[in-house]
Amino acid sequence: MCELMGMNASVPTDICFSLTGLLRRGGHTGPHKDGWGIAFYEGRACRTFHDPAPSAHSPIAEFVRSYPIKSRIILSHIRRANRGRVSLENTHPFTRELWGRAWTFAHNGQLRRAKKLPLSSARPIGTTDSEHAFCWLLGRLHQTFGDKAPSDEKLQAMLAGLVEEIAHYGVFNILMSDGRTLFAFRSTNLVWLTRRDPFRPATLVDTDLTVDFARHAAPSDIVTIIATRPLTRNEEWQSVPKSALIAFRDGEMILPRSAKRAIKAVPLPGAVPCP
Amino acid sequence: MCELMGMNASVPTDICFSLTGLLRRGGHTGPHKDGWGIAFYEGRACRTFHDPAPSAHSPIAEFVRSYPIKSRIILSHIRRANRGRVSLENTHPFTRELWGRAWTFAHNGQLRRAKKLPLSSARPIGTTDSEHAFCWLLGRLHQTFGDKAPSDEKLQAMLAGLVEEIAHYGVFNILMSDGRTLFAFRSTNLVWLTRRDPFRPATLVDTDLTVDFARHAAPSDIVTIIATRPLTRNEEWQSVPKSALIAFRDGEMILPRSAKRAIKAVPLPGAVPCP
Repeated sequence: MCELMGMNASVPTDICFSLTGLLRRGGHTGPHKDGWGIAFYEGRACRTFHDPAPSAHSPIAEFVRSYPIKSRIILSHIRRANRGRVSLENTHPFTRELWGRAWTFAHNGQLRRAKKLPLSSARPIGTTDSEHAFCWLLGRLHQTFGDKAPSDEKLQAMLAGLVEEIAHYGVFNILMSDGRTLFAFRSTNLVWLTRRDPFRPATLVDTDLTVDFARHAAPSDIVTIIATRPLTRNEEWQSVPKSALIAFRDGEMILPRSAKRAIKAVPLPGAVPCP
Repeated sequence: MCELMGMNASVPTDICFSLTGLLRRGGHTGPHKDGWGIAFYEGRACRTFHDPAPSAHSPIAEFVRSYPIKSRIILSHIRRANRGRVSLENTHPFTRELWGRAWTFAHNGQLRRAKKLPLSSARPIGTTDSEHAFCWLLGRLHQTFGDKAPSDEKLQAMLAGLVEEIAHYGVFNILMSDGRTLFAFRSTNLVWLTRRDPFRPATLVDTDLTVDFARHAAPSDIVTIIATRPLTRNEEWQSVPKSALIAFRDGEMILPRSAKRAIKAVPLPGAVPCP
C-alpha cells in the first residue's frame, strides 16, 4: 500500500512541514520505499518531481522538502509497489492534459482486473493498475463531454459516478486535480483537516518537528490537508466520508447539490455549496 | 529567442557539464531570463523540471545542474519570451502522452499565425505558439496512425513532412523526443557534435570550466549534444542540416532511407541507417 497527501489552500502555500513527515515514511518511519512523487499546481500547469528511489534517502526529496514552492493545490504520493515494477513510469502522481489543463492523479490501494476497463484517448505509460484507472477516467470524461470542459457541477457529478464504478474493482483511495479543484475519494483510509484562524502549533507524528502556524499564516488563510493517515499528533483529523467524491477549492470543501444530499448524514464542517 | 540543448547517448549519461554552460545564458551570459526547463527520459517516461525564474538564479536549476541525473535522452530549453507571458504553463519543454510514451518538445523561434493550425486530441495548456505547434504535430500523428505507433521509418517520414509544413510559419528550430529517438529540426540555428573515443578535454564558452571526458567516459560511450549555439570553445560543432528532420538514437544519427536521399549533399559524419 502507499500513502497519499494533498493540500488545497486559499493562497499559495508551501507544504514543507507536512512533506517532512510524509517523506520520512518512505523508507524510514514507514515501508513505502518504492518511489515518491509530487505535483505543485501553478495556474493550469503543474510542476512535478518524481523519484523511484525511497523518499527518506532521495536528494530530490530533500531538495523539494527544503525549498518552499508555494501552490494552492499540491498532490503527493509515496509508493510501496504491489503491481508494476519500481520505475519512474510507475511513480505517481500521473499527469495528462485534458481540456487544456494538466490533470494529476495519485492512488492508494489495489484494483483487480481494472486493466480490462476500456481506454480511449489517454494511454498508460507504465504498467500500474492506478495509471490505467486514471486513463480510463479521463477517457470517459472526454467521451462524455467532448472537447469542452463542462460546468463544475456536471464534472463533479460525472466524476463521482466514475470513481464509484472503479471502486468496485478493489481499494480506491485517490487524490485528483485539474488545477482548479482537488478531488478526493476514500475506500478505506483517507483523513483530512482544515487549518484556519485561530491557527495553533502542530507537531508531526513521524518526527518531533513542531510549527506554530499562528506565526506563519495570515488570518484569512485557509489550508486543507488530506492524507492517508494523520500527519500531526495534536490536531483533529477526520475521515473523508466513505465512497463519496469530495472536492476542495480555495481551502474549503465544495459540494454539488446532489452529493450534498447523498452524504448529508456525515458531519462535514466547513462545507460550502459548489459555486 | 530561446536556446535549446539536447543530448542523446549510448548509455545513461549526466548533462551537468553542458548544463552549467547553458543555464548561465539564462540571465547571466545571455538574455534568456524568462524561465527554463529540462526533461530526462527513463524508459517510456521522463522527469521534468521547470521554472519560470531565470535559470542563472534558480535554486531548481542549481539543484539540477549539480545533481547528476543520468539519462540517454535529455532535452532542455531556456526561454526569452516573445509570445505568451512568463509563467509555468508557457515554459518548455512541453510533454504529452502518445501511444503510451511521454513525448517532449522544445522550440526556438517564432511562428506567425500557427495558432490557426487545427487541433485534435492534444490541447495547449499555455498560450505559446510553440505548444500549439506541438499539439498540432501530435494530433496529426494520432490522426494518421491511430492508436498504435507506426514503424520507426513511417514515423520519421511523417514527422519530417509535418515539421517542414510548420516551418513555413516562421522560425522553427526544435528538439522533440518520444524517449526512444531524439529528433531535431533546424530553420536557423542548431549545431551538434558527437563525443566518442578518443575523448578529449572540453572547455565551456560561458565559463572557464573544463572537463576531460577521457577521465569520465568509457571507450564504448557515444554522446551527441545538440544546441542552439556551441557550448564549448575547443570542439568542432557542426550545423544541423537545414530544413531536414534528423534523428538520433544510442548517441548516433539515424536516417531513414528517404531522408538520406534528400540530404545526401550535406556531410553527416557518423550517420548510420535507421534500423
